[in-house]
Amino acid sequence: MLEVRCLLRSVRFCSSAPFPRHKPSAKLSVRDALGAQNTSGERIKVQGWIRSVRSQKEVLFLHVNDGSSLESLQIVADSSLDSRELTFGSSVEIQGQLVKSPSKRQNVELKAEKIKIIGNCDAKAFPIKYKERHPLEYLRQYPHFRCRTNVLGSILRIRSEATAAIHSFFKDSGFVHIHTPIITSNDSEGAGELFQLEPSGKLKVPEENFFNVPAFLTVSGQLHLEVMSGAFTQVFTFGPTFRAENSQSRRHLAEFYMVEAEISFVNSLQDLMQVIEELFKATAMMVLSNCPEDVELCHKFIAPGQKVISFVDKAQYICCLIISYTEAVEILKQASQNFTFTPEVAAVDLLVPGVGELFGGGLREERYHFLEERLARSGLTEVYQWYLDLRRFGSVPHGGFGMGFERYLQCILGVDNIKDVIPFPRFPHSCLL
Amino acid sequence: MLEVRCLLRSVRFCSSAPFPRHKPSAKLSVRDALGAQNTSGERIKVQGWIRSVRSQKEVLFLHVNDGSSLESLQIVADSSLDSRELTFGSSVEIQGQLVKSPSKRQNVELKAEKIKIIGNCDAKAFPIKYKERHPLEYLRQYPHFRCRTNVLGSILRIRSEATAAIHSFFKDSGFVHIHTPIITSNDSEGAGELFQLEPSGKLKVPEENFFNVPAFLTVSGQLHLEVMSGAFTQVFTFGPTFRAENSQSRRHLAEFYMVEAEISFVNSLQDLMQVIEELFKATAMMVLSNCPEDVELCHKFIAPGQKVISFVDKAQYICCLIISYTEAVEILKQASQNFTFTPEVAAVDLLVPGVGELFGGGLREERYHFLEERLARSGLTEVYQWYLDLRRFGSVPHGGFGMGFERYLQCILGVDNIKDVIPFPRFPHSCLL
Repeated sequence: MLEVRCLLRSVRFCSSAPFPRHKPSAKLSVRDALGAQNTSGERIKVQGWIRSVRSQKEVLFLHVNDGSSLESLQIVADSSLDSRELTFGSSVEIQGQLVKSPSKRQNVELKAEKIKIIGNCDAKAFPIKYKERHPLEYLRQYPHFRCRTNVLGSILRIRSEATAAIHSFFKDSGFVHIHTPIITSNDSEGAGELFQLEPSGKLKVPEENFFNVPAFLTVSGQLHLEVMSGAFTQVFTFGPTFRAENSQSRRHLAEFYMVEAEISFVNSLQDLMQVIEELFKATAMMVLSNCPEDVELCHKFIAPGQKVISFVDKAQYICCLIISYTEAVEILKQASQNFTFTPEVAAVDLLVPGVGELFGGGLREERYHFLEERLARSGLTEVYQWYLDLRRFGSVPHGGFGMGFERYLQCILGVDNIKDVIPFPRFPHSCLL
Repeated sequence: MLEVRCLLRSVRFCSSAPFPRHKPSAKLSVRDALGAQNTSGERIKVQGWIRSVRSQKEVLFLHVNDGSSLESLQIVADSSLDSRELTFGSSVEIQGQLVKSPSKRQNVELKAEKIKIIGNCDAKAFPIKYKERHPLEYLRQYPHFRCRTNVLGSILRIRSEATAAIHSFFKDSGFVHIHTPIITSNDSEGAGELFQLEPSGKLKVPEENFFNVPAFLTVSGQLHLEVMSGAFTQVFTFGPTFRAENSQSRRHLAEFYMVEAEISFVNSLQDLMQVIEELFKATAMMVLSNCPEDVELCHKFIAPGQKVISFVDKAQYICCLIISYTEAVEILKQASQNFTFTPEVAAVDLLVPGVGELFGGGLREERYHFLEERLARSGLTEVYQWYLDLRRFGSVPHGGFGMGFERYLQCILGVDNIKDVIPFPRFPHSCLL
């Protein structure tokens, strides 16, 4: 015990700087600096990349961004601190005093006392050009640099925020998160465009598979969530899914993210719809309240016109979506009075103009003999015996849905091409980096 | 606008039951029922699976579990409600009055008024047996049923909780979450055990790849996080990674989850170590405070003896780990005074007895000419030109680490075999479901 304490002390010692002579400047993110309440000349340190340079006779203005917010921090320096290396894209560390800005364009600015250049950036060779608004197609050629632009920075921050919001929503609603497998011997959507995998490099014996059976990349976690629905009444997964489709559309990717949920003891589509509605709203609200500037940028520059969700219109817009969904269900209901437990009818999709299928879901077939017969007819009884077993032992009525995460982002942000809402898009003939 | 409101009203209408004669019983999860403060005979409805049955002459006792907690809800019913179908594993819906329990073993119990059997369970054929404690190896044969046991239920709830804790930790610390790609044309760990993929089923033209280049399943998101480190100062990813290793050990899987983080403007390992320490602690604390019974079950039945983290010892245990880590760094430091920017030395691993490498991390090589020379020597200059470019334009010193998520769970829970802390384990010769 004493030994533990001694060691602990030595940790404390070595993790702080040894006997500093001056109080070191507090390191702040640009976001925190911009939001600082105390601007009475506190000494701080900021690190980031130069987004603009303006050299005047006696004063140098810089804007520094570190990805923590869309807005950059204005740096004001004596021109004696100027240098030819202070170019757009270079990385810097700046120490100085955080003060109230005399300009109305920003609340605070940093009066620089010391500017240190960390990494140069040759403006001529750099594919991102100063003060130019590059088309999204142009930026797609540079997956390693496009995150340094305002627009991709905003989209990636929003994606991160939406991801966190989805996790929070399900946790707060009592769902258990399940990591459904990526590699699977199932094919849940039946037939079609699967990626198959095998160890690379080694001498392949065609009859021998690494897993003993042919293995594929998942197209959906549904069947695995159905397994979990026999133990937990609410489960969800949020991960990558795959299609080996030879499609070059602006709505399809070979690798994309799906949010999927499965709920036990469900008898009607209404129960599912309520979760879908709440998920859609909670996520949108969280994004809108935590990244208002980022959302505004997308709406202003990417999707002007009717796709825009302005802050005033957002609730209305979301309600519209849910209503179209409800209407669709009503139509289905009218089409058949006997729709409960008839999976051909008890399924719903939410289609959004310009985006395609955003949600798809339904109640699952739970009649053992019906399933048994269908599997027998397809010669799949042996392979799916485990699925039949779920209906033999403590079966419950259950249903669920999937939401295409990239399409959700396209929908709320008005981004036309799915390749622009994922960090590293994979599609036929392209797997950059 | 009027139209929208009318439609909205119709949604409200159809989502509630039409004119109920009696106030319907509130549906509660077992967890909420167990935690209810109001036990003055409130009418509730509970759904779940029977975990135990005890028929006495005049009274029937059931325990019902719905996966929301380890503890089940005790149901007390008049024996007239008994039925041969009320067996271990069957699913039921029970309505009744929630009352204070006269027994000290539980706070509340449900006085059943109505018991509805939803799905039967043939006890003879069901591989999970009543009152039997099955070895974990036995349960592994039934990936579709093992989640219905106490121990796997607890592990999966803990896994879900730890996942949420990790997301919260990074979000609260200002990190941007990046979905690094699963399919990649890189090989970040250099050579070795990769899974290669191609569309299945179609006539393969050996020279033609779906992506134009050979494509693999990721072994690490590090390089992609390094890309993002040129725009955001703190990024992380948490997703599946893959190894096509022919290893049958209890520490290896072909598909496992990694938490990876990358931090810009980092000059010393201390900065990384601090994040590792905080991540380890914050996650463990969240798990311990939100799932105390589940953790206790693991420690009691899976890992008795020295691996146990009791609630009293937990802080100490965690400190020990961090100290071993620090010691290792100290040894590295002493081994070379000139260790900053020398990647051979500026790298650290946290090894845990019985679990193996839990964390691995380090500072990244940022010297352009050094990297250029190394790549040229390996004939990889063309393929990794993009990586070199990261050092040419606004480069910053950065570093990061990866944590094996399953090994983390093994470590805090004392679970011996990695196959028992992941819902659907994939390893050589096995890809069940």
